Amino acid sequence: MKTLEEYIVSIPDFPRPGILFRDVTGVLDSGEGLRLAVEELAKRLEGLEFDAIAGVESRGFLFGAPLAYHLGKGFIPVRKPGKLPRAVVRQSYDLEYGSATVEMHADALKKGQRIVIMDDLLATGGTAKAAATLVERLGGTVAKMLFLVELYDLGAREGRLAGYDIDAVLKFPGH
Amino acid sequence: MKTLEEYIVSIPDFPRPGILFRDVTGVLDSGEGLRLAVEELAKRLEGLEFDAIAGVESRGFLFGAPLAYHLGKGFIPVRKPGKLPRAVVRQSYDLEYGSATVEMHADALKKGQRIVIMDDLLATGGTAKAAATLVERLGGTVAKMLFLVELYDLGAREGRLAGYDIDAVLKFPGH
Repeated sequence: MKTLEEYIVSIPDFPRPGILFRDVTGVLDSGEGLRLAVEELAKRLEGLEFDAIAGVESRGFLFGAPLAYHLGKGFIPVRKPGKLPRAVVRQSYDLEYGSATVEMHADALKKGQRIVIMDDLLATGGTAKAAATLVERLGGTVAKMLFLVELYDLGAREGRLAGYDIDAVLKFPGH
Repeated sequence: MKTLEEYIVSIPDFPRPGILFRDVTGVLDSGEGLRLAVEELAKRLEGLEFDAIAGVESRGFLFGAPLAYHLGKGFIPVRKPGKLPRAVVRQSYDLEYGSATVEMHADALKKGQRIVIMDDLLATGGTAKAAATLVERLGGTVAKMLFLVELYDLGAREGRLAGYDIDAVLKFPGH
């Protein structure tokens, strides 16, 4: 039986030369990989009290939605601008070049709710931090940030995400 | 207990004036809605032999990935151009104004495999048809096209999707 790590395909020079891309879609190629991923993610949430999982478009949907289903929790989509039809809150953040924006429905959570933020991969943490800010602006608390893969040497834990409870199933170097 | 239909929020004039948008994200607001949606989708696949579910970015991921997980099947992401890191096949299709393109990993399926195409909502069927074409170009067969919501009066079944086995959990008028 393959381990979860063996389902992650490493692709050189994508999306730009010099980047070694960790392709989580290999996990989805079989029912076995997906089952393994959801089970491993669920283990990281054992004993944690929380109300819903907020997943970041689009790869955060691929793992966050099955995880929410498995755990019987609601799922909050964190999307690119203009995609969510109800009233939204919006947060921009800096990228290496330029900036990006994410949105969440303003009624996605109630004050005091505890939210797990989930994405496929943690690099420098910009998107996760923006999602956390949206949760907090709506009166919620970030119960945990959970990733399938963490690129552990890009400084997210000590930098942008300092103070958050962070967990990841697999860890790879980002350089 | 709410029915699945009661979780669908209808939003007037989104994304453009005159469009009554059927918001499936309301289903995700609670663990109960998501469980109900996956169970109802799974019922439509009972007795069907198939190998994997191909879900269309992004809302097709929200329901297709939990469904694949529930059924122990692999999940094939159908994505917008430039998002998939491995070698891809690509298909363009016409929209009301302009055109759009979707991609699938070229190694996403093996010849002869039977694939269920899944999206949140069926309107005129352009995206589903493009996804089906990709499956067929790779030597696969479309076992079924499955939707959470079908806008039944936009002509998809007799038009673009004629000849395919189509099923939807909920049906609404599109006009």
